[in-house]
Amino acid sequence: MRTVYVNGKFLSEGGGVVSIFDRGFTMSDSVYEVTSVVAGKMLDFDPHMARLQRSMGELGMPKGPGADALKAIHLKMIELNKLDEGLVYLQITRGVQDRNFELPAADNALTVVLFTQARPVVESAQAERGIKVISLPDLRWHRSDIKTTQLLYACLAKDAAKKRGCDDAWLVRDGLVTEGSANNAFIVTRDGLVITRDLSTELLPGITRKRIVELEASHGYRLEQRAFTIAEAKAAVEAFITSATQFVMPVVEIDGAAIGEGKPGKFSVALRKLYIEDTLSRAGIRR
Amino acid sequence: MRTVYVNGKFLSEGGGVVSIFDRGFTMSDSVYEVTSVVAGKMLDFDPHMARLQRSMGELGMPKGPGADALKAIHLKMIELNKLDEGLVYLQITRGVQDRNFELPAADNALTVVLFTQARPVVESAQAERGIKVISLPDLRWHRSDIKTTQLLYACLAKDAAKKRGCDDAWLVRDGLVTEGSANNAFIVTRDGLVITRDLSTELLPGITRKRIVELEASHGYRLEQRAFTIAEAKAAVEAFITSATQFVMPVVEIDGAAIGEGKPGKFSVALRKLYIEDTLSRAGIRR
Repeated sequence: MRTVYVNGKFLSEGGGVVSIFDRGFTMSDSVYEVTSVVAGKMLDFDPHMARLQRSMGELGMPKGPGADALKAIHLKMIELNKLDEGLVYLQITRGVQDRNFELPAADNALTVVLFTQARPVVESAQAERGIKVISLPDLRWHRSDIKTTQLLYACLAKDAAKKRGCDDAWLVRDGLVTEGSANNAFIVTRDGLVITRDLSTELLPGITRKRIVELEASHGYRLEQRAFTIAEAKAAVEAFITSATQFVMPVVEIDGAAIGEGKPGKFSVALRKLYIEDTLSRAGIRR
Repeated sequence: MRTVYVNGKFLSEGGGVVSIFDRGFTMSDSVYEVTSVVAGKMLDFDPHMARLQRSMGELGMPKGPGADALKAIHLKMIELNKLDEGLVYLQITRGVQDRNFELPAADNALTVVLFTQARPVVESAQAERGIKVISLPDLRWHRSDIKTTQLLYACLAKDAAKKRGCDDAWLVRDGLVTEGSANNAFIVTRDGLVITRDLSTELLPGITRKRIVELEASHGYRLEQRAFTIAEAKAAVEAFITSATQFVMPVVEIDGAAIGEGKPGKFSVALRKLYIEDTLSRAGIRR
């Protein structure tokens, strides 16, 4: 039985509840972050908290608990749940209010929820095989740069992929790939150019995406940040996704077409290795 | 203290809670309906339940409780809360699941929540004055025909309107009005033509919208169902919105420009009266 956190209290999993009048429940007025944990240590916690503050700011939410307070709660959750490897999930909503489209007063208490999930993140059989994706129209709202809990379409996209024997979906708007269902999309061209979409309101500014871009720059990779089509992706020699919990995950098939040789390519494998080494090292984790 | 309903139990308001693992909370995997109540009787309950079933079907949710079971719960809620006038809110989520973008098994129990809100719906000082709206880009997801709880943008739009001294927002996509923040939009041209957008995935098939369209047809109004621009709306002699809780609400200003004479016009007033008479009569309410 996990220990979860709700508004200042550490509770047994079954006791983790919120009011039916919580705006996170009735209005999806709510943001979240997911931080990976390896060897009991958090990876890239600070950028997650910076992005959380940005999400809240974009939605005009009142300032919530500071990064230090949130860090203490995260660390306590790792300790109480004896979490060695997995993730810590944090969700903040605009709090409880009798249902109303109008926003509550600025002094309305925010709802703060955390829980953990234990799972392997570094060693991944899936990363050995690579994943298969399908393309789907991107029907999400037009502020995908804000990490809200309006995740229904991402769930439906993932479900559609599963039903077609695939693992995930790449979303396409105006003919161009925006991102994956909950990850950023990369391709590698025949001449070794790595391409990922430039940041805008149409995609999440992934923290792993940023690290990969930095690592590519510092390790002599050629990178272009621009939108690309599914046709370009199918013609690529490699493709991969990045996310805080999947790190770098090779994509070996798009809409039934094998990418490159249909198995994880050298760029994807090398970047995954590089990312893991760099990230664990920065977190002070020796393996 | 209200009595609320959660998964088979009638509870005091403070006891109305859901798990933090409820998919309605973490994923906005959730639909809702709001039924107006006058003189203790529900208005247009059957079409609300039909639309709920459609919403659930479009999202691939398992069949929930039938319309008869839901009607019994609604009636019990009206009785327990001694609700004379106001509304009954119903929300159904895909239930509790350890957070996962993948959908749970089809036998995962749905979460069913109801609560009531007492408020005047027939007599409305606002309807006497009319409301002011602003136009905003429609940034919502592209399945606004499904009544999900992904309502964050509607809340932000309403808030933006309030901050500009107005009451609501009309949302514009590709240069054309889709609908209001939580209502359908109508205009009346100089030559007495009533225009409202034709149904598509871009707007909610409003139950009040449908009634108004039917009443217009049966009472000799000239109606056209097509998309219109904000410029057309500003040039209109009247404008109004329809919703289950606002009925027919005159719009007297759009983006700072007075519509017609800047007060509720004859079409809006007549259609509100006609709608109320027809709806109360069908519900067996004498006044």
